[in-house]
Amino acid sequence: MNRRPIGVFDSGVGGLTVVHELMRQLPHEALIYFGDTARVPYGNKSPDTVRRYSREILDILLGRDVKLVVVACNTASAHALEELERYAPVPVEGVVRPGARAAVAATRSKNIGVIGTAGTMRSGAYDRAIKAVDPAARVTQRDCPLFVPFVEEGWLDHPATKLVAHEYLDPLRKDGIDTLVLGCTHYPLLKPLLGEVMGPDVRLIDSAEETAAAVSRELARSTLHAPDDAQGRVHFVVSDAPGQFEKVGAAFLGERVRDVETMALGEARG
Amino acid sequence: MNRRPIGVFDSGVGGLTVVHELMRQLPHEALIYFGDTARVPYGNKSPDTVRRYSREILDILLGRDVKLVVVACNTASAHALEELERYAPVPVEGVVRPGARAAVAATRSKNIGVIGTAGTMRSGAYDRAIKAVDPAARVTQRDCPLFVPFVEEGWLDHPATKLVAHEYLDPLRKDGIDTLVLGCTHYPLLKPLLGEVMGPDVRLIDSAEETAAAVSRELARSTLHAPDDAQGRVHFVVSDAPGQFEKVGAAFLGERVRDVETMALGEARG
Repeated sequence: MNRRPIGVFDSGVGGLTVVHELMRQLPHEALIYFGDTARVPYGNKSPDTVRRYSREILDILLGRDVKLVVVACNTASAHALEELERYAPVPVEGVVRPGARAAVAATRSKNIGVIGTAGTMRSGAYDRAIKAVDPAARVTQRDCPLFVPFVEEGWLDHPATKLVAHEYLDPLRKDGIDTLVLGCTHYPLLKPLLGEVMGPDVRLIDSAEETAAAVSRELARSTLHAPDDAQGRVHFVVSDAPGQFEKVGAAFLGERVRDVETMALGEARG
Repeated sequence: MNRRPIGVFDSGVGGLTVVHELMRQLPHEALIYFGDTARVPYGNKSPDTVRRYSREILDILLGRDVKLVVVACNTASAHALEELERYAPVPVEGVVRPGARAAVAATRSKNIGVIGTAGTMRSGAYDRAIKAVDPAARVTQRDCPLFVPFVEEGWLDHPATKLVAHEYLDPLRKDGIDTLVLGCTHYPLLKPLLGEVMGPDVRLIDSAEETAAAVSRELARSTLHAPDDAQGRVHFVVSDAPGQFEKVGAAFLGERVRDVETMALGEARG
């Protein structure tokens, strides 16, 4: 048993879908969430830069005495997880492997689709993670750069969003996938629309749910879970624009986002 | 006469539309372009953060002995221009005032529309700049957060882009504006589509053209222009992902982007 908080980080607001699931599945845990809103998004940045940013945030969370770190950003999980695992003195859980395991468990045809940011797709992390579980699986990837801005605009079922979804996903549908991994924390908000576009025969895998389940297993394994008398809570830290984070965050968290702390990152080298 | 380079900066690739116009209007000048691709975009970041990033980049450009600095990013012009002007020992030109002057010169009804990022619109910089030229002007603003991702995706005339443009712009059209300022460096690439949506009676103001003209006047005024025997050239520096910058940049610059230098910014404070 351990009352120390769980650290969670993301490039911005998207990781709140993971926080939502952690709160639901682990109601006694204290959570600290760091959203790097000063440098969001990570999806179009280089692996080296994403690793550097992720290390900085890991240090901040370790400075707050976390007992476990959740990399709630697919791009950071894809590029930085191994390095963070080597470096951190506490367990580190990403979102890629839980999503990959769930996809392999769900598929019947072994024909799996994955969508995410350009960075996540280019890294090949999902492809490797899925094939590590089932080498016979066939993985078809597609980056969907417009989905994040549509979600942040709140146009979750706008006709334009649907047109874009068809453009991105029709090739995957025609390819005969029966399972689609939503490999970006923003995408669960598009679930109804994506379900409509892909049809009832395609199972959508939400990494947020799977990651929270993986964290729960890790806490049990390492006996780090909070006692049942502990009151769950969450503290938010962002690197910029807390007001905007509160406003946009509610849709991701499923409830109001309050008491957001701001911590500036980065110093000029010039 | 002065052979020192002109420094140009932007949050990423968009400012290349300004570089394109500078190269066209000032063929003898040497240009240094800095694109902050490690922290792009600026449009959704706080004024303080945008000012801090802009100061860092100004220092880098001053370190390269520039004779004039062009803030080719609307959001940075809106939030940071006054501070940069106070701080820099060389002339600083933004994109907001040139666009505002051109809009006032173009309008007959004095009913002017402005579109841009959320940050630029919230700053009210265009409204102030237009009214400083003509206090009788009426300004209607609209932030269009999805335009930048559509341009970066290269979907310049996709049906989805058109649907989005109608959603954003139909209220401005109904409002009877006769002049629309494209207050974001990405938007000139959407000119054909925006012209179609707004109709032939609305004049589109491209800040890139106007800014290059303002720089040309400033060089003449301060006798800082390069001699006619000088060969124009441009050197590119980015804070991340030079390959991606080269790939996406060509559409903005109107020619191939080559020899991109990478310079990492920012150090951990954590």
